[in-house]
Amino acid sequence: MLRTHLAGELRAEQAGQTVTLTGWVARRRDHGGVIFIDLRDRSGLAQVVFRESEVAEQAHRLRSEYCIRVVGVVERRPEGSENPNLPSGEVEVNVGSLEILNESTALPFQLDDQSSANEVGEETRLRYRYLDLRREGPASILRLRARANRAAREVLDAHDFTEIETPTLTRSTPEGARDFLVPARLKPGTFYALPQSPQLFKQLLMVSGMERYYQIARCYRDEDFRADRQPEFTQLDVEMSFADQEDVIALAEEILAAVWSAAGYRVSTPFPRMSYAEAMARYGSDKPDLRFDIELVDCTEFFADTTFRVFQADYVGAVVMAGGAGQPRRQLDAWQEWARQRGARGLAYILVGEDGELAGPVAKNITEAERAGIAEHVGARPGDCIFFAAGEIKSSRALLGAARGAIAEKLGLIDEGAWAFTWVVDAPMFEPAAEAKASGDVALGHSAWTAVHHAFTSPKPEHLDTFDTDPGSALAYAYDIVCNGNEIGGGSIRIHRRDVQERVFAVMGIDAEEAREKFGFLLDAFAFGAPPHGGIAFGWDRIMTLLAGVDSIREVIAFPKSGGGVDPLTDAPAPITAAQRRESGIDAKPRPAGEPAN
Amino acid sequence: MLRTHLAGELRAEQAGQTVTLTGWVARRRDHGGVIFIDLRDRSGLAQVVFRESEVAEQAHRLRSEYCIRVVGVVERRPEGSENPNLPSGEVEVNVGSLEILNESTALPFQLDDQSSANEVGEETRLRYRYLDLRREGPASILRLRARANRAAREVLDAHDFTEIETPTLTRSTPEGARDFLVPARLKPGTFYALPQSPQLFKQLLMVSGMERYYQIARCYRDEDFRADRQPEFTQLDVEMSFADQEDVIALAEEILAAVWSAAGYRVSTPFPRMSYAEAMARYGSDKPDLRFDIELVDCTEFFADTTFRVFQADYVGAVVMAGGAGQPRRQLDAWQEWARQRGARGLAYILVGEDGELAGPVAKNITEAERAGIAEHVGARPGDCIFFAAGEIKSSRALLGAARGAIAEKLGLIDEGAWAFTWVVDAPMFEPAAEAKASGDVALGHSAWTAVHHAFTSPKPEHLDTFDTDPGSALAYAYDIVCNGNEIGGGSIRIHRRDVQERVFAVMGIDAEEAREKFGFLLDAFAFGAPPHGGIAFGWDRIMTLLAGVDSIREVIAFPKSGGGVDPLTDAPAPITAAQRRESGIDAKPRPAGEPAN
Repeated sequence: MLRTHLAGELRAEQAGQTVTLTGWVARRRDHGGVIFIDLRDRSGLAQVVFRESEVAEQAHRLRSEYCIRVVGVVERRPEGSENPNLPSGEVEVNVGSLEILNESTALPFQLDDQSSANEVGEETRLRYRYLDLRREGPASILRLRARANRAAREVLDAHDFTEIETPTLTRSTPEGARDFLVPARLKPGTFYALPQSPQLFKQLLMVSGMERYYQIARCYRDEDFRADRQPEFTQLDVEMSFADQEDVIALAEEILAAVWSAAGYRVSTPFPRMSYAEAMARYGSDKPDLRFDIELVDCTEFFADTTFRVFQADYVGAVVMAGGAGQPRRQLDAWQEWARQRGARGLAYILVGEDGELAGPVAKNITEAERAGIAEHVGARPGDCIFFAAGEIKSSRALLGAARGAIAEKLGLIDEGAWAFTWVVDAPMFEPAAEAKASGDVALGHSAWTAVHHAFTSPKPEHLDTFDTDPGSALAYAYDIVCNGNEIGGGSIRIHRRDVQERVFAVMGIDAEEAREKFGFLLDAFAFGAPPHGGIAFGWDRIMTLLAGVDSIREVIAFPKSGGGVDPLTDAPAPITAAQRRESGIDAKPRPAGEPAN
Repeated sequence: MLRTHLAGELRAEQAGQTVTLTGWVARRRDHGGVIFIDLRDRSGLAQVVFRESEVAEQAHRLRSEYCIRVVGVVERRPEGSENPNLPSGEVEVNVGSLEILNESTALPFQLDDQSSANEVGEETRLRYRYLDLRREGPASILRLRARANRAAREVLDAHDFTEIETPTLTRSTPEGARDFLVPARLKPGTFYALPQSPQLFKQLLMVSGMERYYQIARCYRDEDFRADRQPEFTQLDVEMSFADQEDVIALAEEILAAVWSAAGYRVSTPFPRMSYAEAMARYGSDKPDLRFDIELVDCTEFFADTTFRVFQADYVGAVVMAGGAGQPRRQLDAWQEWARQRGARGLAYILVGEDGELAGPVAKNITEAERAGIAEHVGARPGDCIFFAAGEIKSSRALLGAARGAIAEKLGLIDEGAWAFTWVVDAPMFEPAAEAKASGDVALGHSAWTAVHHAFTSPKPEHLDTFDTDPGSALAYAYDIVCNGNEIGGGSIRIHRRDVQERVFAVMGIDAEEAREKFGFLLDAFAFGAPPHGGIAFGWDRIMTLLAGVDSIREVIAFPKSGGGVDPLTDAPAPITAAQRRESGIDAKPRPAGEPAN
């Protein structure tokens, strides 16, 4: 190595030793001809001092982020000049010789200044990601991620799971998003698809008797980059045979506890569980944030005989904002705007005065009996505000679910240091295809129903006989793991019987021919003694985002894409040459399926 | 879990215990109404016996590869019926109840019969890969691979390397092969390229100060599937800063020793090294197989004044086949055919009789003095055969290099249990572009020279000043690791200075504009204090192939492609629909580089 020691690991015990350090000039100070440099390497910082006139003169050339190598003697700093904030702060290196390994041109943003880096904007940070990563924060996230990988693998290895790579150049596996396509030059007119997940391959591995598989797997979805998504993302993908829901959940909890521990957090297992129905009823969300205990209160029965038109609805629900009665008018107006941005007509409210008197427009419209009982019904105390949503149940609950989060944020009820995990189980097996499409997913199949999880999820045993005659009531043998309001993983017990899989396809309007064309290989595999199996996939980027305490998954990816799928660093995607296009076979006339290539 | 024990782990100590097992029917035997099943799970086999008439009757339904669950009592087998070849062979399970978890249809090939599986052919094995993997051999290879991953990561983690994922959807990085392309729907007319290696990203990570990176990385090359290649393959990719060749080599040896150890082999380090020039001169190959000690003998000087036309050449070399003088005429003819298949005109030879007399056509054509001295010059003894190649040095040596391998095989000189590692260092930095193209590579640049390793490899320090004035003499700061004649890894110290990188591009005929267009981001990065760095990439599939003792890398990949890049299981690649094509943006008119998307 070009060095003998790491800068950040120098200690007083090494005083007197001659060391060679390499790294970057993080900061330079001149004090009467003596030059002090904070030298940074991956371990941290050390102060190196150029006292002797010859090296001090050389050191005058040094600028920020020059890459240098110094040889010098470790010395205790003069009393009073130690830096207790720096692990190496008791010592400095008195430099005898300096070598400039590489110069640096002027930086586009200062690396030691968080605010400056934030100001330049993400686009610039990503364009100079190799500079952004020289800052301790971004670099430490990548190191955290590597530790998390290791922690997860240790758990899985200890349970005799086998890490197996599945293909990237594969066949379309419709799972709710568009596929990225790769033209196959050797079979012009045909395309590979990049996998949206290794779902089918991991099920085939179960059929193969490998029994326990995992992979930190890259997945690809060609979406419109809404929200905080990346065209390529990573999941920790796990599958096991002869297991039921309890086994997968126990394993998942062990993995998560180990990963959180790798980030320095202790979480206790088992995690609580609730049914999907309960999550929707109490929290208005299938990924409830349980760091605060505001809950939805169902008022449908309470207002069953109401004369107030707005509350003559399929569903009326409420959430209480403690102390919210004191909100000024413009704040109450702001809530209306907030609700309208979510597609609602507004957010009805009642203010409970300190004297118990109700105020606000809703209070005037409801009956005397309702006025007398509503505060108690929803658990509101004097000084509180009750927010209501009424109408179609799903969207009303969603609005109240969002409101509880907004209330908690406004009131500072969220313990930022808390980790609130919960399993959400017993989700519906199917949903109306129209709803899936409305939320931007690609609904597989051609019927009124599509799968909530995916087409390979087993119905719960008690719905095995009836899921196709009564799809709306069937529950899936599925489980999602939620942390602080984020879905960080999800899985299910899979279908392993060909007849059941075919019945599920039928519910979704996938006829035998289409099933054979798209998933024939899986149906075939099931016919050879496929074992019962199930698994889970963790959203690895999302988990890292939580552990790192950052806002965007772009912060936890070494080289993320910005909006529109562009990499500001390499400027990918890029035009191709005419020769590349010609060679790739992109323009070959697509042949009908089944017709052989020539 | 649906079971309490693993079949292969049952032992005599468990006699008397009631156990539940799950697995597959590997074999069924009937003995007078009693049914014996070899039940297989991932741990191995156990004999389960259906003695009681009720379960025996049920068990009559069982066929090969039915997936079942049995509850029964572990019993010592009757004396004399133990199976010492089976770890669980002292016991059997007396079944009280049987559940059929899934039936199996008739198998396309028998799983317990190696010869049958071989006979059906690879295409069928891959089409039913989930059955192929139920056989112990194929499954054990995937398990070995997982152990190797772990062993490598343990070494790298212990040395403070950070595992970092680099993008798959990226920009073309010309490295000797065609890129796979992915149309970018959101920026129609542009394409991502799948990476041929993470080379540029790992160098950017070094610029970022991460200092030590690794990744078990998927790579993609759109080649013509010559030889034993896969369109997607895996390399263990490692890069480190402030390191020189010795550091990378020492680390690589530690990794390889750990990986070999994970496969049950002990190899001792350090490995021997030789220069590229020495490898070519002594073995006629840059990846010499050192399991046997046949060497090339240079006879150019010896025949300097020869009258034999064929030997009036730039190079004359020989290899000796011990005992080869006794080869019958048809075998000597077969050598000629063998040589012609390699593009040579033939393989000249001299037979050294037991009496020391030389025979064969060449012997007649050379001078008396040459006849008198040649055997001693090449180290041939009575009864040996001397093979010659003469002409252009590179191809002549390659022919002799191939001949030494063929001789060793014929004579059974290759110790199949040996692991002969060697480093090959000091390769030329550049080669004539025409040669690269002739061997099927895509030569980057437009000059007469192209890079032997790749364009980012540093010249050795002593060639730093002269590599562009005398490209043919410059040596690269590169090192390849060879095992048993296979190149299993290669790396180099990289260029970290912008000026040097630009000079290398210039030698390759890449002008400033093209360099900026293709690698501007890397050149930019070098300008910000890029550190000295270097690394290595191991051909992970190739290493697994060696460790598993199989012939093809298809055996070490869970779901490999067969010839033409087709996956016989999923039938990828496949035609796409007109809607997919429309949406993908494939047919958008390519815009000139730099013009913004609309």
